[in-house]
Amino acid sequence: MSKGLDYETLNENVKKCQYAVRGELYLRASELQKEGKKIIFTNVGNPHALGQKPLTFPRQVVALCQAPFLLDDPNVGLVFPADAIARAKHYLSLTSGGLGAYSDSRGLPGVRKEIAEFIARRDGYPSDPELIFLTDGASKGVMQILNAVIGGQSDGILVPVPQYPLYSATISLLGGSLVPYYLEETANWGLDITNLRDAIRQATFKGIKVRAMVIINPGNPTGQCLSVANLQEIVNFCIKEKLVLLADEVYQQNIYQDERPFISARKVLMDMGPPMSKDLQLVSFHTVSKGYWGECGQRGGYFEMTNIPQQSVDEIYKIASIALSPNVPGQIFLGLMVNPPKPGDISYLKYEQESKGILESLRKRARIMTDGFNSCRNVVCNFTEGAMYSFPQICLPPKAIEAAKKAGKHPDVFYCLKLLEATGISTVPGSGFGQKEGVFHMRTTILPAEEEMPAIMESFKMFNDAFMEQYDDQRAGYSRM
Amino acid sequence: MSKGLDYETLNENVKKCQYAVRGELYLRASELQKEGKKIIFTNVGNPHALGQKPLTFPRQVVALCQAPFLLDDPNVGLVFPADAIARAKHYLSLTSGGLGAYSDSRGLPGVRKEIAEFIARRDGYPSDPELIFLTDGASKGVMQILNAVIGGQSDGILVPVPQYPLYSATISLLGGSLVPYYLEETANWGLDITNLRDAIRQATFKGIKVRAMVIINPGNPTGQCLSVANLQEIVNFCIKEKLVLLADEVYQQNIYQDERPFISARKVLMDMGPPMSKDLQLVSFHTVSKGYWGECGQRGGYFEMTNIPQQSVDEIYKIASIALSPNVPGQIFLGLMVNPPKPGDISYLKYEQESKGILESLRKRARIMTDGFNSCRNVVCNFTEGAMYSFPQICLPPKAIEAAKKAGKHPDVFYCLKLLEATGISTVPGSGFGQKEGVFHMRTTILPAEEEMPAIMESFKMFNDAFMEQYDDQRAGYSRM
Repeated sequence: MSKGLDYETLNENVKKCQYAVRGELYLRASELQKEGKKIIFTNVGNPHALGQKPLTFPRQVVALCQAPFLLDDPNVGLVFPADAIARAKHYLSLTSGGLGAYSDSRGLPGVRKEIAEFIARRDGYPSDPELIFLTDGASKGVMQILNAVIGGQSDGILVPVPQYPLYSATISLLGGSLVPYYLEETANWGLDITNLRDAIRQATFKGIKVRAMVIINPGNPTGQCLSVANLQEIVNFCIKEKLVLLADEVYQQNIYQDERPFISARKVLMDMGPPMSKDLQLVSFHTVSKGYWGECGQRGGYFEMTNIPQQSVDEIYKIASIALSPNVPGQIFLGLMVNPPKPGDISYLKYEQESKGILESLRKRARIMTDGFNSCRNVVCNFTEGAMYSFPQICLPPKAIEAAKKAGKHPDVFYCLKLLEATGISTVPGSGFGQKEGVFHMRTTILPAEEEMPAIMESFKMFNDAFMEQYDDQRAGYSRM
Repeated sequence: MSKGLDYETLNENVKKCQYAVRGELYLRASELQKEGKKIIFTNVGNPHALGQKPLTFPRQVVALCQAPFLLDDPNVGLVFPADAIARAKHYLSLTSGGLGAYSDSRGLPGVRKEIAEFIARRDGYPSDPELIFLTDGASKGVMQILNAVIGGQSDGILVPVPQYPLYSATISLLGGSLVPYYLEETANWGLDITNLRDAIRQATFKGIKVRAMVIINPGNPTGQCLSVANLQEIVNFCIKEKLVLLADEVYQQNIYQDERPFISARKVLMDMGPPMSKDLQLVSFHTVSKGYWGECGQRGGYFEMTNIPQQSVDEIYKIASIALSPNVPGQIFLGLMVNPPKPGDISYLKYEQESKGILESLRKRARIMTDGFNSCRNVVCNFTEGAMYSFPQICLPPKAIEAAKKAGKHPDVFYCLKLLEATGISTVPGSGFGQKEGVFHMRTTILPAEEEMPAIMESFKMFNDAFMEQYDDQRAGYSRM
């Protein structure tokens, strides 16, 4: 008889889960790093790990909140600006016992109020702090909401393909059913509403009741920004099908094309007016990990609920209470993100300079990367309008696919492993995100330092040329999809 | 037809969960606070919220890690001691990108190494950093492990009664079965191995396969420290029944009686030698939230796995990866907790003074509280040997039980609500932790400031006297259990 934590007896849903972002490629890259090889980790959107510097002002404020005894130190003004000191006092006044005390399980009321004010400014409609819950990063929020929605295998969640594997992994873990809808690569990863209807039909046929729909906007790994028209279609569709819309908007500050601004699902909904604006159940997610903040390690996130019945809000609150409280420093970062220094503040100019510098550099890197991929043999890539990723299609020749099969690898895993071994570039194979049958991709972040980018793209090109030289002996012998 | 987040369609396991620590009493206390009443929150072990000051040295180190630019500031030495500066540099060198970068999903390797060294010093046996995972507080670790063990209703977990409701709530949420074993109040909340055998027999009869056993040592809410003999019995029992032993040891620094020191389950196991020491699957939990640290809001915890098969460790790692990384500042706090200033360090004396001051005061408060309760009519209370709680039995008269029934309340909820309304003392009713049929308790923390403690106990006594006066007209008319 086996023991409680023997592999055979483990929760089957745990075993079924797949999470490619830290999967085979990441593990191999970590091994190579241990052996002394220089690895460029582009598998996770983790800007500070690739050299991005933190914004100074928020770090000053949180440092002071961690060391409140400094606020009485006559020398504090020598190392911290007055507005950071004032802001630290402000945030400490919102806690009951500083950063070392559990907050309410939904987060500090004062920070939730600042977030509501930010949302109101952004969208032009008031937001209720009581419907904003803070979490240890946005992923945890997504997991909480999916946990409330999914009761078993017959509960389906519409998820874009390609998708960020947080969704597929969490749905597996909770024993629900992922219902895929395909994004159209040839239409710049746009969403065709006909695909959604088909997806629901097929799910219903299998006895699955679809309960929620996920959108990732800007897209991960696909980088597109959804248009207002597209978002309106989605809202109407979700209302008609009685789906909760889960709007993953963590990349809302990462926008690289002026003609494609970010528009929140909530704004689109409110602009539609009643009865629609009162009808759609919507949960929107945001974080301090992305944008020009990139404060991944701090684990600060929130979700805002719109049109969710109070009884359900109470249940979600109850479940959040089991783990007592999201981390409090991360909550302060959220407050700072939605309420940054204003014109006239001592730290304003520096803050503006730092944040603009990061964003402009990301914009340039998005361009260098897309152009670089598109100049490579058998590689095509949509422009990264937003988010932090490039998701080129690699048109693998039949001989490469055959070689992968022989090696017991998925073809794109085979390609990405070869790339890793040859260049140290650690990517994630497209199969980790989902893709149409017979098409292959890889995801890289656009986060390596701007000055290193040309060399990285050169190194990629050399690898890809050699790879294609080896496997592609009939250059036009297969079709792109 | 209902929508995805309507109450009717929510995950039934979510609705079934109960979490009393932030349940009806807490919600009522929050309301009263909003109305302007002074509330003494003794419902959660949250020391900083009740005025405990953070230890200075760890806060200095983490503040510097948050503001690494200070390390180059010529004035830094005016506000931070040299050993804090050196330690900040040390911890930053263990990260790849500072506090803003995701760490490995198991936590920073360097911190895990420091924890392994601490465990080796504490227990006298080496510990493997690869088997230590960091988490956002210990609760999250418990949830991760239970998630791996529980696949469905037929998977049972042996849980002490009374218990900390993290366990009951998580088991409900995961759809498993809680298998209770009763602690003996008259034997100072000791554990009788016969009860364990009965519990397993009854579970088996219901078709439940018991997979794991939880111990909380020192006890929450019961405050007892398990003896070596008791721990050895538990180890033997778990080996025989092939159970994973989950040792919740978060209060290991909170010890108030020299004759009852804390001994880790791991040390007891290792002392037993092979074959036992190689046989028992053990997971042990610890945190920065308790002890004399009380850094609840930072959410730093870890678990250590002993004799867990590698394949299962890999699965637990994979699931941890879905939410990417525990918060990095919390990880640094863990490093500091297991590796505090040493004799000779600049900050050593201050650190010792602060930590001893807190611990000695807690010891006094444990005594004041136990004695206070035992001086009250119809109240009996075991001494708090460890942890942060007092769990007096309230011998409710039949008339009080009747009045509670009329009010539609559980009798101890009725009592605790009256206490709250009369005095502002916010406790948790015993029914939230489990208790034998017909016996009633309440849990308070021993955390109110030492100087306020006499007044609080006086206020409790006055309330209890009045309550018993009202309902207890036949002083010996019912039996204590």
